[in-house]
Amino acid sequence: MYGLIGKMLATPGKREELLAILLDNHQTMPGCRSYVVARDPASEDGIWITEVWDSQEEHRGSLQLPHVQAMIARARPMIAGFGERFETEPLGGVGL
Amino acid sequence: MYGLIGKMLATPGKREELLAILLDNHQTMPGCRSYVVARDPASEDGIWITEVWDSQEEHRGSLQLPHVQAMIARARPMIAGFGERFETEPLGGVGL
Repeated sequence: MYGLIGKMLATPGKREELLAILLDNHQTMPGCRSYVVARDPASEDGIWITEVWDSQEEHRGSLQLPHVQAMIARARPMIAGFGERFETEPLGGVGL
Repeated sequence: MYGLIGKMLATPGKREELLAILLDNHQTMPGCRSYVVARDPASEDGIWITEVWDSQEEHRGSLQLPHVQAMIARARPMIAGFGERFETEPLGGVGL
């Protein structure tokens, strides 16, 4: 499996709107086992996204899906940047 | 919901053994929606654990469960320390 842990930073005052867009996605992403969108309680603009995919290829492929590209286009004006980013090799656990 | 993203550091040469213990747990943890154990591909000793709970209280309560305490006792000699740790407020997504 292939995992990502990353922080996205919203433009000022736009975190809730950006969260709504991120949560409106991922109904059908082949190979996606987990995709958790979370508020960062330690900041005003941070969003944590943790992902588990069957493979890195399926993660890459998801970025080409029309509905994901549409989501990215809607979200982009509200993304100020990115913070921490870690790749992982998920092995198991609960909820996969 | 209540989330945790954290890195555990294994003692030298003990990562795989520690991973096996961590993966042998969490069959029955009330309130646990996601608990993903992952190897850190960027180091020899790092393990990422990402968790989603219904509430912080349920996460705290899990640490008192007999089988979790037994797991911690088995794992402790192989834990060298901890790295990054982030609390999150999960809102939704896939696999919860």
